Amino acid sequence: MKHYLSIHDLPSIKDTVKEAIEIKKNPLKDQALGKNKTIGLLFFNNSLRTRLSTQKAALNLGMEPIVMNFGSEGWQLEFEDGTIMDQGKSEHVKEAAEVISQYCDIIAIRAFAGLEDKEKDEAEEVLSAFTKYATVPILNMESSVGHPLQALADAITIEEHKPAKKKLKVVLSWAPHPRALPHAVGNSFAEMALAHEDDFEVVITHPKGYELNPERTKGATIEYDQKKAFEGADFIYTKNWSSYNDYGKVANTDSSWMITADKMAVTDNAKFMHCLPVRRNVIVADEVIDSENSIVIKQANNRTYSAQVVLKKILEEMS
Amino acid sequence: MKHYLSIHDLPSIKDTVKEAIEIKKNPLKDQALGKNKTIGLLFFNNSLRTRLSTQKAALNLGMEPIVMNFGSEGWQLEFEDGTIMDQGKSEHVKEAAEVISQYCDIIAIRAFAGLEDKEKDEAEEVLSAFTKYATVPILNMESSVGHPLQALADAITIEEHKPAKKKLKVVLSWAPHPRALPHAVGNSFAEMALAHEDDFEVVITHPKGYELNPERTKGATIEYDQKKAFEGADFIYTKNWSSYNDYGKVANTDSSWMITADKMAVTDNAKFMHCLPVRRNVIVADEVIDSENSIVIKQANNRTYSAQVVLKKILEEMS
Amino acid sequence: MKHYLSIHDLPSIKDTVKEAIEIKKNPLKDQALGKNKTIGLLFFNNSLRTRLSTQKAALNLGMEPIVMNFGSEGWQLEFEDGTIMDQGKSEHVKEAAEVISQYCDIIAIRAFAGLEDKEKDEAEEVLSAFTKYATVPILNMESSVGHPLQALADAITIEEHKPAKKKLKVVLSWAPHPRALPHAVGNSFAEMALAHEDDFEVVITHPKGYELNPERTKGATIEYDQKKAFEGADFIYTKNWSSYNDYGKVANTDSSWMITADKMAVTDNAKFMHCLPVRRNVIVADEVIDSENSIVIKQANNRTYSAQVVLKKILEEMS
Repeated sequence: MKHYLSIHDLPSIKDTVKEAIEIKKNPLKDQALGKNKTIGLLFFNNSLRTRLSTQKAALNLGMEPIVMNFGSEGWQLEFEDGTIMDQGKSEHVKEAAEVISQYCDIIAIRAFAGLEDKEKDEAEEVLSAFTKYATVPILNMESSVGHPLQALADAITIEEHKPAKKKLKVVLSWAPHPRALPHAVGNSFAEMALAHEDDFEVVITHPKGYELNPERTKGATIEYDQKKAFEGADFIYTKNWSSYNDYGKVANTDSSWMITADKMAVTDNAKFMHCLPVRRNVIVADEVIDSENSIVIKQANNRTYSAQVVLKKILEEMS
Repeated sequence: MKHYLSIHDLPSIKDTVKEAIEIKKNPLKDQALGKNKTIGLLFFNNSLRTRLSTQKAALNLGMEPIVMNFGSEGWQLEFEDGTIMDQGKSEHVKEAAEVISQYCDIIAIRAFAGLEDKEKDEAEEVLSAFTKYATVPILNMESSVGHPLQALADAITIEEHKPAKKKLKVVLSWAPHPRALPHAVGNSFAEMALAHEDDFEVVITHPKGYELNPERTKGATIEYDQKKAFEGADFIYTKNWSSYNDYGKVANTDSSWMITADKMAVTDNAKFMHCLPVRRNVIVADEVIDSENSIVIKQANNRTYSAQVVLKKILEEMS
Repeated sequence: MKHYLSIHDLPSIKDTVKEAIEIKKNPLKDQALGKNKTIGLLFFNNSLRTRLSTQKAALNLGMEPIVMNFGSEGWQLEFEDGTIMDQGKSEHVKEAAEVISQYCDIIAIRAFAGLEDKEKDEAEEVLSAFTKYATVPILNMESSVGHPLQALADAITIEEHKPAKKKLKVVLSWAPHPRALPHAVGNSFAEMALAHEDDFEVVITHPKGYELNPERTKGATIEYDQKKAFEGADFIYTKNWSSYNDYGKVANTDSSWMITADKMAVTDNAKFMHCLPVRRNVIVADEVIDSENSIVIKQANNRTYSAQVVLKKILEEMS
């Protein structure tokens, strides 16, 4: 594994989940692996969990994290080729990526979807350009269409909390939010869940018009009736996203889609998951997130181990 | 000592001061204590001394500091329970504090008073919420009502510079400032000084209407005549604060309250102290801050050792 | 060498270049030298290469970098003596520099020219004040009139790529840019090149009115005909700067000064250099920066080793 851009870059999701659970038991075991290696964490967008857990993971591996907030500490990059750069952008990503590759052994990037230009977002403008021009491994800390470190943490969390069943019902439920949010978490969770085809029945529920990119949800059951979707579920994974068809629009803030105890009652004692940050009493009622079945904090803890297992694999390939 | 929220959390201020002075002689002695431990420094407000000295103290103890500017690098937190979070706040402090506790072994927090809502400030909204929800020790890097790392550095500095006298006259003097400032430093200095009841005579001087919270100054002499307060003093500690009664207002910018050589002349060769940053020729005349009796730089140096002794105590309790 | 403020602080540029090239072969050799030492990187302006490469150099030497963005994380400093500080500035540089010297073993500073007050910029207000008041070595990470870490990286790069010739023709060429830029890089490159008087013929070319400070270019040939300047050149170093005489003004954005393949064709197979960030197709045509003769990426890589050799010299003098 050179880069970690999507969960499909893992040689095996299942084996990686097992390895992460082993790392969690003894997180400092591989401190020699990253010694004298730097990881540059480049933030084009704000971050809490990703910022802290990726640093923690790097430190556990003996690496030196160097953090840079690209917008406020640097300047705007040009991503188009051949332009006359006489406007607001001071540097082409080609130079930036090649140069940073000389200072950092791994480059981690967070760059959200702008939600204005579907084609540009789908093309992963920032992540793709860094992957193209950098000469070191790239780690996706949430790009315009994916958040594979989150999805891997989700897989670890499900593995740790799954009931003894032959096939789990895993439900991804849209929930309302006042602002337009990207599709990255929804996409990556769906891809991760669908990669467990032998073990998970994957159901996605949302209002009509909130279909994710169908290429990323192939194999999932789309169910517009949220309560029906919840019936017998083992895991309820909640997330808002803006419309994909009417790209980036907030067509619906229908509060009846909020996750409540009433809805959780029809599941098979399902665990409640969310990537956080979460808006209480908008996305999910206090009664659910504060219940025993809520595993959002444990899920966030696994962000350290998903980052660590991925960095470990990248470092192993480098050495 | 689990948390360090106020100077009263120290088992003994005097013993801690002695221990800090020992640490200062050999600051790298305890580097093994913090090995493989992270401290998250969360800044809700700007900082220079606290930012740098707390990192330095953590490094001296072998810890890994992880700094986050909450406002610009993260997002606004919700502190109220039960609200429908459909406005500007993206995450409840409950999740944030629990999550960060999984990445950081100690959480240090700077969150100033807003000076608009007295009750909220007195309740230490941010610090209290983190203390309530975090599962790791909390270090106060200046909260709405206290700055106990500063007060401990002040105690160390007084110990190092005190004349051989049975009882010291320690004066806390208000001085003018163009903007509304919090009460935290004044409060914590007063509390620290008043805890030395056998050794210090504590006098607080300010214009009428600038009384600090009387609960925090019980035992001190309030003297509205600044020059009278200075007579025979051994230490002059200066600080501006806005009105507490007419909460957060700047009722008085009377430049006659500035600390001048003329006023220092009536003291018993008193040392001049200030927590910095200080506005020259507003709070204090150049002639005083540049005099031999000014110990503000040495006082700032002790910020490293006050943070280090506190972190050492917290780490010792953890191990 | 106590401070590194200008390239003239080096005991010998040539020997330092040789030492840097040795360090590059084995960058971790001196890790013990910086152990338990902190370097404070204070940014008054944005930065990418300098921010990352100086941290990397410090880490290679075993130091702990502490980064602070002065504007957004701290507050405005007062640089004038004797002022009544009742306006926007919260702290005098005297206190700031003395205090930071107690937390950091070396202080590195980036503070660009404001380009409004020529006298103030020429006096290096920020850098000079820190040098005056700090009690530890100061490292210039680009000041109002110089960028000596860049110039040293440039010298290393020229040494590595020079053809076998008795005397090299080194050309510094102005190129157009939409915004007003400082003179620091041009100044320091000229000073470095002119210090190689036995080895370099130094030619500076720019439109009339774009003369740099003549004191810094004494010994160079000023040639207003760009193509004539390029004839037989071995190195073309390009950089924009605003007018020095009509201080800080952009009098000319004549795109005919852009570096093109056509112009490079009259050189003696010259290498193309630029400090980056560079605006493509404004400063330089894609065809040149993407050509085999472009060494801008290698030049940026040498930023690590120029910082490292300078820090090594400072550390050696301290120990």
